[in-house]
Amino acid sequence: MKRYLELNFRSDNESPAADAIMQAVVEANLGTAWAYADDEWSARLDDAFSELFGTPTTVIPVSTGTIANSIALAAVTPPWGSVYCHRNAHILNDESGAPEFLGNGLRLVPVDGPGGKFNAADLDRMVHANTGHGVHSYQPAAVSLTQSTESGTVYSAAEIAAICDTARQRDMAIHMDGARFGNAVASLDCSPAEITWKAGVEMLSFGASKNGCMAAEALLLFGRSDVKDTAERLRKRSGHLLSKMRYVSAQLLAYIKDGLWLEMAMHSNEQAAVFAAAVDAHPEACLEYPVEANEVFVQWTVEGFQRLEDAGIEFLHWPGRDDLARFVFSHCTEESATVRLCEALAD
Amino acid sequence: MKRYLELNFRSDNESPAADAIMQAVVEANLGTAWAYADDEWSARLDDAFSELFGTPTTVIPVSTGTIANSIALAAVTPPWGSVYCHRNAHILNDESGAPEFLGNGLRLVPVDGPGGKFNAADLDRMVHANTGHGVHSYQPAAVSLTQSTESGTVYSAAEIAAICDTARQRDMAIHMDGARFGNAVASLDCSPAEITWKAGVEMLSFGASKNGCMAAEALLLFGRSDVKDTAERLRKRSGHLLSKMRYVSAQLLAYIKDGLWLEMAMHSNEQAAVFAAAVDAHPEACLEYPVEANEVFVQWTVEGFQRLEDAGIEFLHWPGRDDLARFVFSHCTEESATVRLCEALAD
Amino acid sequence: MKRYLELNFRSDNESPAADAIMQAVVEANLGTAWAYADDEWSARLDDAFSELFGTPTTVIPVSTGTIANSIALAAVTPPWGSVYCHRNAHILNDESGAPEFLGNGLRLVPVDGPGGKFNAADLDRMVHANTGHGVHSYQPAAVSLTQSTESGTVYSAAEIAAICDTARQRDMAIHMDGARFGNAVASLDCSPAEITWKAGVEMLSFGASKNGCMAAEALLLFGRSDVKDTAERLRKRSGHLLSKMRYVSAQLLAYIKDGLWLEMAMHSNEQAAVFAAAVDAHPEACLEYPVEANEVFVQWTVEGFQRLEDAGIEFLHWPGRDDLARFVFSHCTEESATVRLCEALAD
Amino acid sequence: MKRYLELNFRSDNESPAADAIMQAVVEANLGTAWAYADDEWSARLDDAFSELFGTPTTVIPVSTGTIANSIALAAVTPPWGSVYCHRNAHILNDESGAPEFLGNGLRLVPVDGPGGKFNAADLDRMVHANTGHGVHSYQPAAVSLTQSTESGTVYSAAEIAAICDTARQRDMAIHMDGARFGNAVASLDCSPAEITWKAGVEMLSFGASKNGCMAAEALLLFGRSDVKDTAERLRKRSGHLLSKMRYVSAQLLAYIKDGLWLEMAMHSNEQAAVFAAAVDAHPEACLEYPVEANEVFVQWTVEGFQRLEDAGIEFLHWPGRDDLARFVFSHCTEESATVRLCEALAD
Repeated sequence: MKRYLELNFRSDNESPAADAIMQAVVEANLGTAWAYADDEWSARLDDAFSELFGTPTTVIPVSTGTIANSIALAAVTPPWGSVYCHRNAHILNDESGAPEFLGNGLRLVPVDGPGGKFNAADLDRMVHANTGHGVHSYQPAAVSLTQSTESGTVYSAAEIAAICDTARQRDMAIHMDGARFGNAVASLDCSPAEITWKAGVEMLSFGASKNGCMAAEALLLFGRSDVKDTAERLRKRSGHLLSKMRYVSAQLLAYIKDGLWLEMAMHSNEQAAVFAAAVDAHPEACLEYPVEANEVFVQWTVEGFQRLEDAGIEFLHWPGRDDLARFVFSHCTEESATVRLCEALAD
Repeated sequence: MKRYLELNFRSDNESPAADAIMQAVVEANLGTAWAYADDEWSARLDDAFSELFGTPTTVIPVSTGTIANSIALAAVTPPWGSVYCHRNAHILNDESGAPEFLGNGLRLVPVDGPGGKFNAADLDRMVHANTGHGVHSYQPAAVSLTQSTESGTVYSAAEIAAICDTARQRDMAIHMDGARFGNAVASLDCSPAEITWKAGVEMLSFGASKNGCMAAEALLLFGRSDVKDTAERLRKRSGHLLSKMRYVSAQLLAYIKDGLWLEMAMHSNEQAAVFAAAVDAHPEACLEYPVEANEVFVQWTVEGFQRLEDAGIEFLHWPGRDDLARFVFSHCTEESATVRLCEALAD
Repeated sequence: MKRYLELNFRSDNESPAADAIMQAVVEANLGTAWAYADDEWSARLDDAFSELFGTPTTVIPVSTGTIANSIALAAVTPPWGSVYCHRNAHILNDESGAPEFLGNGLRLVPVDGPGGKFNAADLDRMVHANTGHGVHSYQPAAVSLTQSTESGTVYSAAEIAAICDTARQRDMAIHMDGARFGNAVASLDCSPAEITWKAGVEMLSFGASKNGCMAAEALLLFGRSDVKDTAERLRKRSGHLLSKMRYVSAQLLAYIKDGLWLEMAMHSNEQAAVFAAAVDAHPEACLEYPVEANEVFVQWTVEGFQRLEDAGIEFLHWPGRDDLARFVFSHCTEESATVRLCEALAD
Repeated sequence: MKRYLELNFRSDNESPAADAIMQAVVEANLGTAWAYADDEWSARLDDAFSELFGTPTTVIPVSTGTIANSIALAAVTPPWGSVYCHRNAHILNDESGAPEFLGNGLRLVPVDGPGGKFNAADLDRMVHANTGHGVHSYQPAAVSLTQSTESGTVYSAAEIAAICDTARQRDMAIHMDGARFGNAVASLDCSPAEITWKAGVEMLSFGASKNGCMAAEALLLFGRSDVKDTAERLRKRSGHLLSKMRYVSAQLLAYIKDGLWLEMAMHSNEQAAVFAAAVDAHPEACLEYPVEANEVFVQWTVEGFQRLEDAGIEFLHWPGRDDLARFVFSHCTEESATVRLCEALAD
């Protein structure tokens, strides 16, 4: 039976679940359990994540990153409030307006910046440009950072702290989209706390589906237990309160147990780094962005990319850019697959 | 390891997944698969359900019944449209307004009727009472039937057809909430087609989570492929397009394979019938509604219910009714557990 | 030029504006004025209404009763909150879901009661029946009373106080739809304060359009300045912040100046009373409800109503009731018109 | 009594109503009239505007430009659809998200372009950049042009036609925000038809409030009677169906009668041109944009603007730009006031 040596670098969300995750789901399948997140697995989430982050943490388990992001933003933003995010942000480009939907017509405002990142000054300028017009304007209400970014780069703790400071001065709530949060932590070799609540982040969409789970994400609240009730109402009202939530919670518990999540993130980062080095050494191809997590954006010729495809390599042609492609490495990318990719590039 | 002889009759949504379902999930976990329902499992759904129902069927896989119901109703109802449903309907009482949310403020109108069922005349009278006031009123847009009902009863094919006729005459769309659809089919010993599209039902929330799955429901469209695009937009926009949809679709495929779903439904119906007979034979306790599926509503004394609890039996005290309790039987209720329940009742 | 002796008793919202109101609009038309309710007329509203009600009052001027009601309810009710109102309420039956729209899918819950009124016990029972189910249910958030009611009856101060007490005990906000508030005050011969803030009402849709204005209503906040900002945001966002608000505010100021509003309400109440006496004295026709304001609901035969129409009388056949019709008297109903109506009835 | 020689150039929406408009309102105040736009004035709108535009035109009278714009866009755009407009558009910056609200979370996408205008190629590029990502992305649904623009410039008929062609090729609906439509027609000296339906515009927010009315706008549908019902539902549901709509309709009829609207627009354009010439001739101050309608944007020094204020001139300091101010001329700007302004500039 074919299992690996897949040469699929399209996206980490095409990867299967890790064995330990699947095992946890199987183990959660014994006997009856109270429904609607009143089960024993869900009951352990707050403690488990509080320990991981070293601070009291409220956990709202859900099935998708889109709903984790949307609940977080809707919980802190009035319908006439705006959320500032990078122009490449997933919430802006890939969620079909779920944040606007959950937030009853809130507005997302793009902030520009190189490498998928904006800085505190960029944010401040954009917010400043949108204030002072009273009820006629949207009211700046929140900022959302993506970590690691959509470009495969990573914000440093200091960069995050600076952005959070700016946001706080303007009474804006602070959210982090951590669909690939593990890759960022692995990359920075820091504690999860350092780049979240210690830097000022109040809400984190802690991603797990892309990095070894089936369908499990956790909306984490740091010092914002005031929005817990609203978040739970939004989860129910959007149809995301699974009756058998235990299977989601069991995934999350197994994911963060004994550092499994970081181990998997480290693996995918390492594979990305191997390929990045190969691109760097290539006479023609080059890197579009610094490679700091598990995504590699390669600038090359149409013919070059065609040769890779001919070699059986799967990757994402970037929409609207003939000269750009994305390669994503996952927890289950085999080292030999990365080697094959590098060889194909060099050919 | 304790697995069974649980005396838990609170709800079928507290039951674990059936072994075959879990096995299917494990088998779906090999290798990478295209994301967002472009996988091979999801690709087989239309054919599998078309065969089961004997008519071309469009399948929208989702994780919860609430979202299946809400997408269906929102897809056919304008914000100023109303949906007629039974006063006890789940969409009205237990979904925190998810249909109103997905439908941008549509209105649910309760219709009364004994045993959790309303009939065509009830519907017609209610709709008639709400028309003729132009833009000032909500516009009747859809009817939603629950099968089996919230009271554990079942609509006959003829009853459904009569309701559908009435709805069609008023240009209303027709939805069935089939959270316990399997129990209804098993009860009537009919084909799934007879009580759905052949009777006039256009959209069915085909439930699986309560009857042996982890988290899997299918919104089925019969002759309404015109709303497929809208339904898919609503699924994405509400955060319900799982990147790894394969695990949901794999559950659904296993669920309907070789009649597994009906076998499980039959089992829970049978256990319910055994207990219903015991209640019927009891000198004091009596049945609140005819028992036609897997739910038994028992009218009794506070002391009586207390004795059951003292015997370790778990069930649902009906909110607001001291003299009423609900017992639900599931695919994994052991026969010996039902026997113990009957004995405890008789004591 | 035909001006009066119109035999139009269909609705007070078909009446023209009173001369003094039109005069105020004309006078407001001199020179430029700051836009968006920053004009001098709007600036005087808070003081003028605070004096009228004998308590600090925040005034939000708008053009329609529907938006006054909807803004009030949306400002105090979350999307998953419910508003309790009488089954005949305008907000429930005649506003096409504007409260649901402004409130992002809030739910209106009808309460039954004779004569268009419900009492504290009715409310309490209904709210009780809808609580205790956590995130699965709508959360009772507000109660809305109509004064005078849709049936032409009037709540006493004591009745209102009892309802408000019940609402407060359940942490529900309290709104009064006063589309015909003047008729209620005139009927009770009380101060406006007695049946509003002194009894516990927090928000009043103070109607003026039906009683002599062109298009002017005031949302009044008593002790709820906390929702002022939200109310103003909702007004803008729903397109109701007129650039030239001065014309609305000028109407409101003229309306409450020197008791004009009560004078007009008293006139229409008196005309209604004259007709009510005639109905009472009639051998066949009878009153459906006590006549306490400016509306008279007459139960009679189809032939009887036909005779009135043949005599050139215009009135409203009640939808769905062949034996019921409504006659509304306005600030400009001429006494001779009422006499003619009574004669036609007696014929 | 002070009436004129006001030196107020802040905004045309601060001007009073023209005498003929007020006279029409007074004349509409005789006797009763059917409510909710079933009056004789409203009944004449379709014919009157059809004649003015030389094509069958459906008219939806409303009180504000914000709601006219929002109804139009919401009627043709699904919640997951996007509307393309200029970055300076009123719908984007000054309506507090009313289009998003009416459109249940639709998205506005800014298009850049000099002088407040974008061209067909700009639009095409922006739309192209946002397509091809299926349910994950917003779906381009409409384009909204502002005529005259927020910068006081005017699109030619050819420019409009080119934009409409592009939109049609992408199945996008076409709306024009004509808050200052009269100024554009007066500027181009064309027929209203040439720059609307003949060029491809399907829906026009025909503004009147800024140019001599109290509170009156008309949403016009050309060849889009298919959205009439939806538009009327949205008007009601947003609280904009005035019971006494006759006063709005009477304003509109008087406004377009015998060319009054164009006469007034011509006057304000002429006054703007006089001032523009003075700015042009000034050694320091200069025009930020070509002056093609009734708005003049002046670039100058802080000291210069201060001198104008010291001379009693009122105008708008542009938010975020110390060196920019806006001067708007209205139907009632006296020639002597313009002269005084020019003198103050020259001082």
